[in-house]
Amino acid sequence: MAEREMSRTKETFEPRISLITLGVRDVEASAQFYERMGFERSKSSSTDSVVFIPLRGIVLGLFSRTALAEDAGLDASPPTPFGGITIAYNTRSEEEVDRLFELMVSVGGKPLKAPQKVFWGGYSCYVADPDGHPWEIAFNPHWEVSPDGAMRLPAG
Amino acid sequence: MAEREMSRTKETFEPRISLITLGVRDVEASAQFYERMGFERSKSSSTDSVVFIPLRGIVLGLFSRTALAEDAGLDASPPTPFGGITIAYNTRSEEEVDRLFELMVSVGGKPLKAPQKVFWGGYSCYVADPDGHPWEIAFNPHWEVSPDGAMRLPAG
Repeated sequence: MAEREMSRTKETFEPRISLITLGVRDVEASAQFYERMGFERSKSSSTDSVVFIPLRGIVLGLFSRTALAEDAGLDASPPTPFGGITIAYNTRSEEEVDRLFELMVSVGGKPLKAPQKVFWGGYSCYVADPDGHPWEIAFNPHWEVSPDGAMRLPAG
Repeated sequence: MAEREMSRTKETFEPRISLITLGVRDVEASAQFYERMGFERSKSSSTDSVVFIPLRGIVLGLFSRTALAEDAGLDASPPTPFGGITIAYNTRSEEEVDRLFELMVSVGGKPLKAPQKVFWGGYSCYVADPDGHPWEIAFNPHWEVSPDGAMRLPAG
């Protein structure tokens, strides 16, 4: 790609994600699961059919899986045991992984993998939400979680 | 849940997502697709088997779909046409939706839904990445994209 074209592209597409929407069977039940974890829905932006949870500069959405597929022009069937996406929550310690694993399971998450030392040098577990969306809770000693919760990769 | 317990929960689980990992067939091919869109991989954190793209305080990961399923303790088969998650990039204008739709398709994305006025009052389209992960590119007149790219929901 020519230097000039690359520069145009970079100006056009800023490196960000605005919203992650999880397709769910029951929007209210799913919202209550995430609230039990400690997330808070936006009252002004949520409705009976869609719930938005503001995070740090991005938003987590909960919407009917069928309606979401239809919205995206995709086929919602058949059911998909693994959709090929995981969401991770990085902690500041191994102990915090244990604590959050217990919390997420206690409020209705399904344990997929217990907290353990993992091959890349960290400590991690997986828990599925009520619709099977897999969350990893991980401590990565090489990655910094800044005081405001933002993820910082090493420079370069 | 008792007041005291709720307060403990909120302190434990900060409202954030650290990392979104897309399971892909070919990590390098997928990384090059996202680079053609204008994203940049972290050279220091990426390897041949996993690529990390720093965004605004979160990270987009690209990792073998099979290895990701194995890591999460999930069954990677059968293939899943719709995994139940969409990722959205919010713009500051309708014209920007048109421009980014063209860009994403021109670098190898598959159009799922052309830019159009949508039922919730915005203007939106969907494009799939090389592994079928659906991105929505949307202008929502009710939601603010701040100067630094962060998503702002109306207060309350």
